[in-house]
Amino acid sequence: MATHHFTPERYYAAIGTYEPVLQIADGDTVVTTTLDAFGNDAAGRAVGPRPNPQTGPFYIEGAQPGDTLAVHFDRLWPNRRDGYTSTRLAPNVVDPWYVLEFPKQTEMGVWELDLQGGTATFTKPQTNLMPFTLPLRPMLGCFGVAPAGGEAISCATSGPHGGNMDYKGFLQGATVYFPVFVEGALLFVGDGHAVQGDGEIVGTGIEVSFDVQFTVHLHKNRRIHWPRAENETHIIAIGNARPLDQALQHATTEMARWLQSDYGLDQVGAHTLLGQCVEYEIGNVFDPAYTVACKVAKSILPKV
Amino acid sequence: MATHHFTPERYYAAIGTYEPVLQIADGDTVVTTTLDAFGNDAAGRAVGPRPNPQTGPFYIEGAQPGDTLAVHFDRLWPNRRDGYTSTRLAPNVVDPWYVLEFPKQTEMGVWELDLQGGTATFTKPQTNLMPFTLPLRPMLGCFGVAPAGGEAISCATSGPHGGNMDYKGFLQGATVYFPVFVEGALLFVGDGHAVQGDGEIVGTGIEVSFDVQFTVHLHKNRRIHWPRAENETHIIAIGNARPLDQALQHATTEMARWLQSDYGLDQVGAHTLLGQCVEYEIGNVFDPAYTVACKVAKSILPKV
Amino acid sequence: MATHHFTPERYYAAIGTYEPVLQIADGDTVVTTTLDAFGNDAAGRAVGPRPNPQTGPFYIEGAQPGDTLAVHFDRLWPNRRDGYTSTRLAPNVVDPWYVLEFPKQTEMGVWELDLQGGTATFTKPQTNLMPFTLPLRPMLGCFGVAPAGGEAISCATSGPHGGNMDYKGFLQGATVYFPVFVEGALLFVGDGHAVQGDGEIVGTGIEVSFDVQFTVHLHKNRRIHWPRAENETHIIAIGNARPLDQALQHATTEMARWLQSDYGLDQVGAHTLLGQCVEYEIGNVFDPAYTVACKVAKSILPKV
Amino acid sequence: MATHHFTPERYYAAIGTYEPVLQIADGDTVVTTTLDAFGNDAAGRAVGPRPNPQTGPFYIEGAQPGDTLAVHFDRLWPNRRDGYTSTRLAPNVVDPWYVLEFPKQTEMGVWELDLQGGTATFTKPQTNLMPFTLPLRPMLGCFGVAPAGGEAISCATSGPHGGNMDYKGFLQGATVYFPVFVEGALLFVGDGHAVQGDGEIVGTGIEVSFDVQFTVHLHKNRRIHWPRAENETHIIAIGNARPLDQALQHATTEMARWLQSDYGLDQVGAHTLLGQCVEYEIGNVFDPAYTVACKVAKSILPKV
Repeated sequence: MATHHFTPERYYAAIGTYEPVLQIADGDTVVTTTLDAFGNDAAGRAVGPRPNPQTGPFYIEGAQPGDTLAVHFDRLWPNRRDGYTSTRLAPNVVDPWYVLEFPKQTEMGVWELDLQGGTATFTKPQTNLMPFTLPLRPMLGCFGVAPAGGEAISCATSGPHGGNMDYKGFLQGATVYFPVFVEGALLFVGDGHAVQGDGEIVGTGIEVSFDVQFTVHLHKNRRIHWPRAENETHIIAIGNARPLDQALQHATTEMARWLQSDYGLDQVGAHTLLGQCVEYEIGNVFDPAYTVACKVAKSILPKV
Repeated sequence: MATHHFTPERYYAAIGTYEPVLQIADGDTVVTTTLDAFGNDAAGRAVGPRPNPQTGPFYIEGAQPGDTLAVHFDRLWPNRRDGYTSTRLAPNVVDPWYVLEFPKQTEMGVWELDLQGGTATFTKPQTNLMPFTLPLRPMLGCFGVAPAGGEAISCATSGPHGGNMDYKGFLQGATVYFPVFVEGALLFVGDGHAVQGDGEIVGTGIEVSFDVQFTVHLHKNRRIHWPRAENETHIIAIGNARPLDQALQHATTEMARWLQSDYGLDQVGAHTLLGQCVEYEIGNVFDPAYTVACKVAKSILPKV
Repeated sequence: MATHHFTPERYYAAIGTYEPVLQIADGDTVVTTTLDAFGNDAAGRAVGPRPNPQTGPFYIEGAQPGDTLAVHFDRLWPNRRDGYTSTRLAPNVVDPWYVLEFPKQTEMGVWELDLQGGTATFTKPQTNLMPFTLPLRPMLGCFGVAPAGGEAISCATSGPHGGNMDYKGFLQGATVYFPVFVEGALLFVGDGHAVQGDGEIVGTGIEVSFDVQFTVHLHKNRRIHWPRAENETHIIAIGNARPLDQALQHATTEMARWLQSDYGLDQVGAHTLLGQCVEYEIGNVFDPAYTVACKVAKSILPKV
Repeated sequence: MATHHFTPERYYAAIGTYEPVLQIADGDTVVTTTLDAFGNDAAGRAVGPRPNPQTGPFYIEGAQPGDTLAVHFDRLWPNRRDGYTSTRLAPNVVDPWYVLEFPKQTEMGVWELDLQGGTATFTKPQTNLMPFTLPLRPMLGCFGVAPAGGEAISCATSGPHGGNMDYKGFLQGATVYFPVFVEGALLFVGDGHAVQGDGEIVGTGIEVSFDVQFTVHLHKNRRIHWPRAENETHIIAIGNARPLDQALQHATTEMARWLQSDYGLDQVGAHTLLGQCVEYEIGNVFDPAYTVACKVAKSILPKV
């Protein structure tokens, strides 16, 4: 149960089977930092590739394909005072004809973060939305494990291995579960958002570099098909795909399986519970693969 | 501001320009009943057509194309003690290959409603989910106004006129706004659900006949493109289409317009607010047209 | 086997259960005319509603729900010398970001039709594509039968009843089969295109009024689920829905059923034949419902 | 203009930046072989990984990011006498409810290839489709160049780099153009199909090992965004994505750009030509990314 303080020196813009930067054990904690989506660090220096450069990979001792890796976010917090957003809705989230009314050029939005007070304030460009201050709600947009089959997948997108899911539910306190596809699992973390709406519909959260602390646990011989997560109130299955319909299909299928394998429900029970109680959240509708979270409240789950 | 007690005698399984059953004024209240989705009334008698037979249409005096009709749900409550659900996930909400693992036949699920205690308890078929009791959360699945262009649209589906949106946010206390397409607006209501999960993913809520009380208000010369709604905490724009991506596009476009026309935001302001604060809910992913709700918390809206 | 010369006096912009304009018998032929998509007749007079006003409905004696109506196009030909097209790709058929490069305003394209020579020549606006002359390939964009359930469906869109399918395979010489949903079937025809590309991706064919001659045959007690068609070389099943994936699913399912019910194939045979021999055409990707044609060459069908 | 006879010794199931197996020059020809989709060679030995193992990568001297690589298929022909297909439609290509009627288990279909006569005959399992013989129409399902950004993409799917497009238009005689993303381009070839229908809707063509001969040409400083192709009659732009709608958007956008950049058309001209003359083909609707081909007949292109 060691705690490792790790200072990254290089970053990856794809998630694949690269040389590990640190080997850690089941139960260990890592304290590290991540760059923002554009490759800039806490001092604003451009030190990593685009998009969404990753810190890692971290090799988890004993992890083998067919296991599940649990990653608990102990701490997620911005480590500098300026964050950046797009100021125009992504053309793919509005009616195609409405795009004809869009400005052809836009300016990057700049936010001032109060790291003690826990707020983000929009500072430019000028808009009559101002003054506009939001509470910080720090989350990781892109993180995951090395995919199967020798793939190295761009940090622009996501899949069964995680990646750029941009789901605002990946907050401090959440535990995320990944299928292990390669020896050592090879965990990557990056792409902190100080705040993000559902769907990441301008194509960004408030992009900023982060301090990150996480703890890993290994579940041997436990095979899952998609990332899963858990917080105080819900269990959550993630689906990543386009269109949204397919992301929802993946997430719902994974949840139906989960309820039967881990909560002992028969099929009628699992389907009936989902039918009247399921909750969905839209992670992102911007990246090449969209993300849907399928949630069930712990309060209605069978006790196991 | 009259209150009309209306007992329906016939029902429609499509929403169109039919002979009004009652003429009411701006500000009036109607107290009536609706059948369940299968056409059965409070006594369990089959008295209406399938699917989702509607009570109405109600003619609102003075309503003209280009106006907006506000419908406030004063009271929504089941009026009998048995409700029905499907017990199998709809094949379109899971991975296509997972359907191969589904039972070919299924039995209808039966729920006992405690109308005083406010609960629904699953009574059959037998499943190890039992005992399973949920708090009532009564909502209307299908309601709307006569569409434009002489259309009569099946109560299986939805569109700019409303219809079978199956969105669990349409609760007592909500106000729903419809574009008026024909003289008198011609409002229909039906398809009560005692409880429903996001997405209506088994293809039903807990289907039951309802007591319904609503009050209408007319907003003259106010043109909207999609149903909108409002509750204590949020404003909500609705998009109805397939796939989910397009429903989300409609809802997001309507909300972007709303923020600019009614809340005085410039485009950068509207898009920035949406980018970091929008919330989405999935109404249904079962009906021919899916439904997405695009929500903004009133707490962050400019005061107007 | 009478031939009826019918001069329309009113037109419908929705397909529904309206008062028939003419009653015809199984085997009868109708010679009539259709307006263009904008409601203009052979003399260029605006005499009908938008969009895609229909001539009809024609009541076919003896047609009952559960029957199939065959409509053979004996003759389809423009009846005036000017046709019209949009000159900008529909925003929904290109990458959403590419729409930002589109002109906000566009001018209607005008074509001169040589009805004897059988050509269409683009005459304005000015473009360096000119001179640009295409052979006429006249087809009907929108036609169908009254839908089930009391629906009246806008001529903007399509469904199991046909409607605005905008499929360039609906040419003179083709036979189209419709499910009969109401007594008399109630056949409508309209929306001639002198030429059209796959997908109708500018949102129009070369829109023009038409002379239309068709002959009907009734197949009693023969239930189909989607429009089907046949020409010299192929049998064709049509699916109408959004997105394209679902239109393709409908068309493929209908064809799989057709091969088994009418050509005697077992399931392995039907699926194997489709797997290696199916051909798809994209009718339209512009209308609210898209259209996919699933085709099998008659040359490889079992002889029946 | 050398001709290289290359015998592969290892194969890749992902397309990425791997060590080249052969360095060739602009204008060179390669004569080689490919395994079938399951990793089996001409002798039926399992010698490569699944799915769709690739021969290569071939390093093209002088190729740099921003160039275009042309690959001409001089010869594509099966090199053994047994081919394999799935005998059940993929569940994602039919109506979701229709899957409930599918057999849960299926048997692989076996075809006997007459390599001299140029036919494929279905030999088992038993079906009343028999006798069933088709002319060979050999094509490559999966081939492409190393993607950008350090990605290695599974041969199950496709993208701007090509990959598993499963488009039946990639025949002997066709020239395919790829964007060059890495130094040397790194070309891979594999996954021969003796025959394939549109959409690859059973999930396979007739899968068999191939003899392949191709010739490469380098177009320096010529940037394209998606694979393009050309045959005797058409120019073709390829889009790979889900859903079909997006694959079509990519292909149409690429074609609109191509008509303007290479054929000198202004925007009105390019859009008008496409609107009335475009042809689409569906490559596959089975793989994680679907493939749409957007085609324009050379006969109507401006002479350049």
